[in-house]
Amino acid sequence: MPYFRVILVEPLYEINIGFACRIMKNFGFKELCLVRPRTPITEVTRIFAAKAHDILASAIIVDSLEEAVKGFDLKIGTTGKLAGPRNILRSVVFPWHLHELMKCEGKVALIFGREDIGLTNQELSMCDVLVNIPTSEEYPVMNVTHAMAVILYELSKAYTRPKTKLASAKLREVALKYFSDILNFIDFPKEKEPKAKLAFKRILGKAFISQKEMQILLAFLHKVHLRLSSHVTRKS
Amino acid sequence: MPYFRVILVEPLYEINIGFACRIMKNFGFKELCLVRPRTPITEVTRIFAAKAHDILASAIIVDSLEEAVKGFDLKIGTTGKLAGPRNILRSVVFPWHLHELMKCEGKVALIFGREDIGLTNQELSMCDVLVNIPTSEEYPVMNVTHAMAVILYELSKAYTRPKTKLASAKLREVALKYFSDILNFIDFPKEKEPKAKLAFKRILGKAFISQKEMQILLAFLHKVHLRLSSHVTRKS
Repeated sequence: MPYFRVILVEPLYEINIGFACRIMKNFGFKELCLVRPRTPITEVTRIFAAKAHDILASAIIVDSLEEAVKGFDLKIGTTGKLAGPRNILRSVVFPWHLHELMKCEGKVALIFGREDIGLTNQELSMCDVLVNIPTSEEYPVMNVTHAMAVILYELSKAYTRPKTKLASAKLREVALKYFSDILNFIDFPKEKEPKAKLAFKRILGKAFISQKEMQILLAFLHKVHLRLSSHVTRKS
Repeated sequence: MPYFRVILVEPLYEINIGFACRIMKNFGFKELCLVRPRTPITEVTRIFAAKAHDILASAIIVDSLEEAVKGFDLKIGTTGKLAGPRNILRSVVFPWHLHELMKCEGKVALIFGREDIGLTNQELSMCDVLVNIPTSEEYPVMNVTHAMAVILYELSKAYTRPKTKLASAKLREVALKYFSDILNFIDFPKEKEPKAKLAFKRILGKAFISQKEMQILLAFLHKVHLRLSSHVTRKS
């Protein structure tokens, strides 16, 4: 995983600086760098940073973007504007293309533009790659911190480990067997059985049913089965 | 694609209601419903809604979550808390699981909890499915509008059409041919040629090089080739 620095160029609002700290901490990013902030850091900034006061307190303030990216291997800019296919300056990738990056080592600068005018053409040309978040054409201008949330989310996603234990194939088979037996007890039309069984299997599959959920479902199916089989026995 | 309603339960801050409108418009969502808002809609709300004033103006205000989700086929809740594998109430899916949903028809309610206490257990149990955004364990509590940005982004992503024309296989071959010829001109070690050619191909591939970018690269390779071949001719 690369080492990341998040850079805000000439931020205008204290709320956004605060929110930036909070989002960074939400997704495990640590180093914030402010280029010529146009607002001081105030009590408001601290309120919006919430529990990310450590990131705010250690934020680096510099005088130019050149200084902010010095020593960084890859400079990633963000842009809300898409250009036609002939405009190389604004040739972009989408956030999910950044997943590959998480397998690399090196120092990466993530650069977010001004709230009012974004990044200048000169700043865009300094970047090695530009990321654009696909939005509605009607209103493509996102608040900078919401754009940051999307991009840091996508980056951290590539590192997410699943925490839920999927129901095992063995338990799935047991559930299907119960289901199939129950179909017999309830005089379900024979010719429709295969389709019903497949539908049941698919429902469990699409739900990504967990081991724990499956245990509950099996307890239920077991009890239904027990009750139906005793009825059948009594009747016969 | 389903019909979506975004629901904020008892929102506390006017800034968040405004930001919610903006994000919704950024990602093409239209219907906002506020359950018992704990703040009036003010000039501040309108400022943060920015150009999404139409969404703010048409927001529906109701007295209960039951009323907000009435007539909706699927109720999706959001939770920042993850529970152990034994807690069915908080059994969650991740935002990218919602992609499948975009292929469905029907009415879907997306429910976001209070800034201070999220959704209550009773409200969580009303939901058909819960979504959790994977965050750092150190600070998992996101601002509600940043969580909304991530979820609406993931949903709209499933509908994104690529706008860039990829460089064609034909142009890729031409570029490789130039590259290969140039290797010959520069006395590149023969045994390292296959590896160099593969690396060049991979670089173009990983960059998702566009048709326009490829044309520029080809013009460059063509000129290098021309110059080198004239040198060789003159030397011989």
